[in-house]
Amino acid sequence: MTPTSRTKLTRLPKRGAHDPATIYPILDEGLVCHVSYILHGQPFMIPIAYCRINDTVYIHGSVGSHFLRELAKGIDVCLAVTLIDGLVLARSAFHHSVNYRSVILFGKTRLVTDGTEAWDVLKQITEHLIPGRWDDTRQPNDSEMKKTMVLAIDVDEASAKVRTGNVNDDPDDAGLPHWAGVLPLTIQPRAPIQDPNQAAMEVPEYVTGWKR
Amino acid sequence: MTPTSRTKLTRLPKRGAHDPATIYPILDEGLVCHVSYILHGQPFMIPIAYCRINDTVYIHGSVGSHFLRELAKGIDVCLAVTLIDGLVLARSAFHHSVNYRSVILFGKTRLVTDGTEAWDVLKQITEHLIPGRWDDTRQPNDSEMKKTMVLAIDVDEASAKVRTGNVNDDPDDAGLPHWAGVLPLTIQPRAPIQDPNQAAMEVPEYVTGWKR
Repeated sequence: MTPTSRTKLTRLPKRGAHDPATIYPILDEGLVCHVSYILHGQPFMIPIAYCRINDTVYIHGSVGSHFLRELAKGIDVCLAVTLIDGLVLARSAFHHSVNYRSVILFGKTRLVTDGTEAWDVLKQITEHLIPGRWDDTRQPNDSEMKKTMVLAIDVDEASAKVRTGNVNDDPDDAGLPHWAGVLPLTIQPRAPIQDPNQAAMEVPEYVTGWKR
Repeated sequence: MTPTSRTKLTRLPKRGAHDPATIYPILDEGLVCHVSYILHGQPFMIPIAYCRINDTVYIHGSVGSHFLRELAKGIDVCLAVTLIDGLVLARSAFHHSVNYRSVILFGKTRLVTDGTEAWDVLKQITEHLIPGRWDDTRQPNDSEMKKTMVLAIDVDEASAKVRTGNVNDDPDDAGLPHWAGVLPLTIQPRAPIQDPNQAAMEVPEYVTGWKR
């Protein structure tokens, strides 16, 4: 994850980082990523579930997906994971900001043809969204595996950008009568809604205790 | 917002929509968007705050930003806004899904040079993040306006894709002993954290009452 001209930050470089200790936790906390690619000379993008295994990011979907079939050719992509942590309300409109943690990475897609690797990815995508779920499901059968395409994105470069902390107003604005501070934001679960076609069951602890 | 081959959905077309009544509320609820573009033949992407005014999406930032300077040339972009509404826990791993509402749009960037349009955008970006805030700030001065670049994305095409509702398991799996249902997810504010450099003030209602 060496910085090059593609990922070297030119604005606010103090906010950037290239080390796995910063990048991995952001990748592991996101629920969906955005993947951008080029088709017929135009930029395209799609939001999609994903997971990380070591240095590789994986996505999956239907073998009938035009998007995935394009990516299966092995093309350059840019992938983003963005976490919003709060609204930064400065005294001046100009210094308003957002607290966030984001990763941008570049890599080439690779169709996963090895059955073991594909299985591990499907398990990890489920566990990424909701740890503890995989062992409490009916796992994929041969027919479902054949309908599922798994793609790896072997990461060439990655960078994280993070803003934390409170407001950063101009000293001249210090005495203004506008409330200043941060409104922290989090993703919170609400009460689980059981499938109405299933007899009432106790909700598993990995569901009631889900958090990000 | 007419569908073409770029936005016509080939997978699960029942989930797609091209009407403003579906698209605008999604654009208005998101906090940040992702913008992808092509530079030197490579896909690039950045997460950024934004707002919508009528049929146009706007972003802004520093005039020193390499990213914005590239977009100021008037180039093709793809922009995504994605809202995550819940985790869909089917009995089978295969039918796990995510409830979401997303918009993908295509357009060309345009540097906003009209001072009134730029001012309206800065106001709307603030109000988009936290309605009621603009009138309770020190609004931009001439120097700050000169440091700020505002870009319009005049939308050529847009499409929304939405998944709602509960699980959709195979009938053969109906009797399996795995809890099935949806875990709804929302963005929730936590207690506001006032700037420690400001004397304690009552938190404004538009902050304490913020919701998405």
